[in-house]
Amino acid sequence: MTAALGFGDRLAGVLAEHGGLCLGIDPHRALLESWGLGFDAAGVREFGLRAVEAAAGLVGVVKPQIAFFERHGAAGYAALEAVIRAARDAGLLVLADVKRGDMGTTFDAYADTWLQPGSPLESDAMTVNPYQGTGVLQHAYDLAAEHGKGVFVLCATSNPESATVQTAVGADGVTVAAAILEDMEARNARLTGELGPLGVVLGATNRLADFGIDPAAAPRTPILAPGFGAQGARLSAVRETYGSAAPRVLASVSRDALGAGPAGLAGRLRELRDELRRGAA
Amino acid sequence: MTAALGFGDRLAGVLAEHGGLCLGIDPHRALLESWGLGFDAAGVREFGLRAVEAAAGLVGVVKPQIAFFERHGAAGYAALEAVIRAARDAGLLVLADVKRGDMGTTFDAYADTWLQPGSPLESDAMTVNPYQGTGVLQHAYDLAAEHGKGVFVLCATSNPESATVQTAVGADGVTVAAAILEDMEARNARLTGELGPLGVVLGATNRLADFGIDPAAAPRTPILAPGFGAQGARLSAVRETYGSAAPRVLASVSRDALGAGPAGLAGRLRELRDELRRGAA
Repeated sequence: MTAALGFGDRLAGVLAEHGGLCLGIDPHRALLESWGLGFDAAGVREFGLRAVEAAAGLVGVVKPQIAFFERHGAAGYAALEAVIRAARDAGLLVLADVKRGDMGTTFDAYADTWLQPGSPLESDAMTVNPYQGTGVLQHAYDLAAEHGKGVFVLCATSNPESATVQTAVGADGVTVAAAILEDMEARNARLTGELGPLGVVLGATNRLADFGIDPAAAPRTPILAPGFGAQGARLSAVRETYGSAAPRVLASVSRDALGAGPAGLAGRLRELRDELRRGAA
Repeated sequence: MTAALGFGDRLAGVLAEHGGLCLGIDPHRALLESWGLGFDAAGVREFGLRAVEAAAGLVGVVKPQIAFFERHGAAGYAALEAVIRAARDAGLLVLADVKRGDMGTTFDAYADTWLQPGSPLESDAMTVNPYQGTGVLQHAYDLAAEHGKGVFVLCATSNPESATVQTAVGADGVTVAAAILEDMEARNARLTGELGPLGVVLGATNRLADFGIDPAAAPRTPILAPGFGAQGARLSAVRETYGSAAPRVLASVSRDALGAGPAGLAGRLRELRDELRRGAA
């Protein structure tokens, strides 16, 4: 079975309509407090639903940070189910930021959890972790091809400690990060659509050249870019960082938007969206 | 605050009393079917509780594979909470196999979820993923030091695709896997106890020398060893694989034990425990 529209095509539509801003839904303790909400499942539910309300129509993609829901156990996951459903019902693409990685039937279960149609946590895309190799993530690629889902593989992340693993050099003479980008581009080239469903995470705070990466060489691979705002990167500089790949960058903001509070969030999203549009132009 | 007994000490006690067998609690679809249980939250709950019942008194550690609970959403997590609680109440150490990895407040939330006393999913130890570097995992190390919790960092995993990342060579001239093992040993050396709370995952199907690893050089670092049974490694060969480190190996079995069904599980665990004891001797 092949989905009518692949994730890459859906993402391309969203980028054209709304631009690349992605709202991270990160209900951590400090933000819950600043929103006047409790550090509990009811608080993260309310936070998530209000963030979805503000985002609908202004951005194309929301990215719930699953850790902040999981922190509240089963009740937190019930809140997460409600938030994901509300976002999808509002026409937003939901990118579950879970960074799952494992092997065999275990990884298959993670992929089914987040990408299989009908799963209680079904999302449009998920982030995955390639420490055990990119080959073990096959079931996620299959769900992408069969059901129009998206996958974003950690590649060059935005934290300063990331270089130790990600710039190490493999037997083929290229860095870990570069090998992952090449692999995703090759897989995308075998699928239909100008933009493929298999993306990479390339932090905006990095000099990509330090990782041996040139995103221009992977024109079918979407980019999820964390690191804006509190971490230091500016949306207005997205073209300096990603070059000709800037138009396929999904730029994630969380604190920088959510810190405006429930009343100020929509207005702040408009500002950030416009800043990114100017930066990507 | 410092816990009365560190995780390394608790683990050493368990190893002395029960040996190194660890029962993976992996309620995937095929096993649920063979146990006559439904592929739903009630099925994984029943499966987990029966596995805990069989394991209590026979092994020291159980390792719930979180993916198979998460597959059923919030209801699956409610089942997981019940299984973790039952296991801890039965005196088993619970190692949550979650392979979480992220940065900043997000990783902190993951560590709090699985290791913070009072969390709904509080376990005794968790597995973590070092793709973003080992430095970002600090909050888990802190919880280990403060609350007697354990952390197992993926290092050289048991799947064939693992070499691409894990044998890549970093700026310091050692492999990714070797750098992680050295790092954990150094951190353990700064903590009390003959065995430290910070372990590594070293798959039993690997030739560790291919990863540039010699576990004898890290005498304070516990080892979680997947790969036995269905994946091909034999418990009787644990000393050939791990050498003098064999006595601090936690050998995980799942299908090979769970496939015996609820009635045969305890008997099968006895056989496997004895096979491992002979192998480690």
